[in-house]
Amino acid sequence: MLYKYTLQTGNRDQLLEITGQVRKALQQAQVKNGAVVIYCPHTTAGITINENADPNVGRDLFMRLEEVYPWKHPRYLHGEGNSAAHLKAATIGVSQAVPVADGELILGVWQGIYFCEFDGPRKRTYYIKIIKD
Amino acid sequence: MLYKYTLQTGNRDQLLEITGQVRKALQQAQVKNGAVVIYCPHTTAGITINENADPNVGRDLFMRLEEVYPWKHPRYLHGEGNSAAHLKAATIGVSQAVPVADGELILGVWQGIYFCEFDGPRKRTYYIKIIKD
Amino acid sequence: MLYKYTLQTGNRDQLLEITGQVRKALQQAQVKNGAVVIYCPHTTAGITINENADPNVGRDLFMRLEEVYPWKHPRYLHGEGNSAAHLKAATIGVSQAVPVADGELILGVWQGIYFCEFDGPRKRTYYIKIIKD
Repeated sequence: MLYKYTLQTGNRDQLLEITGQVRKALQQAQVKNGAVVIYCPHTTAGITINENADPNVGRDLFMRLEEVYPWKHPRYLHGEGNSAAHLKAATIGVSQAVPVADGELILGVWQGIYFCEFDGPRKRTYYIKIIKD
Repeated sequence: MLYKYTLQTGNRDQLLEITGQVRKALQQAQVKNGAVVIYCPHTTAGITINENADPNVGRDLFMRLEEVYPWKHPRYLHGEGNSAAHLKAATIGVSQAVPVADGELILGVWQGIYFCEFDGPRKRTYYIKIIKD
Repeated sequence: MLYKYTLQTGNRDQLLEITGQVRKALQQAQVKNGAVVIYCPHTTAGITINENADPNVGRDLFMRLEEVYPWKHPRYLHGEGNSAAHLKAATIGVSQAVPVADGELILGVWQGIYFCEFDGPRKRTYYIKIIKD
């Protein structure tokens, strides 16, 4: 059970919540117990699990990541000029795993699953892999 | 096979080793081969695998993370004031996966599994999901 | 299905691509659908998935990681002097998971799987765990 989705990002840096899509895939698969892996096949984007309540959390996250991994740096050599996006993707990670019990994701009440764009706007892809017990 | 545990943290930043608990869950499940996913359902805490010998490793880890993601920052907007904890959780990650062979975790000799508190003290929860071959 | 490999690193910081080895393990296991977990049992090395085209991406990645987590720091206490390597390993992570469909890794066209040495040169080990649907 592997599901593929596309999305269109609108900014260079952007968090897009995909929790609802993961829940739909899980329902479609009719899996009661197991785990879900959300996978991003890009090198300048990633997947994170973080707060779903105050949008300022994501904004602060991206603000400080940009300070730590600045877009412009006198020592970057990569010709495309998006080394910061690669650094952010490597730090945040390109996949997340969440256990499943009784047909539900074992997410905390404040947790949402997010696609992280670090070099948009672009058309992007992600996969939801469901592992059944 | 999904196990849920709670723990009480005592400091704002704290590493608590949970390797023993993961081993116990594995024995209880009587799984010989597969993988274990350790999952943290919080947005200001995480799970890491790192050195289990010198406590100064964890201390240096948290010291430098605090410099890179400082608790106070003039540009943070999130009202709760714990954006640094969200940044650390996103960097360290909220889950880890470890293969299992012959009933044992395939951990390196110096590796321990740690619950990472970044906004304590709090009562916290974590899950151990065992995936059987 | 768990495979163990060793490699020899040649520098303190080094990226070694292991995508080919992961593909070989997958063929050997003859698994059509499932997921692969690549696991590093060390505390000063990790696994990442990033660009496989321009080597300057990896070079920029390691350059900036060294600035963010410097090898020498007046406040490090760990006696071995390799706290930076532990910080980099915790940030990059010691494992990665990739879904498998029709016997192939669901990697993006620009994605490669890399063993990350942060305290070499050393003889290192990594595992490939294949989870079958």
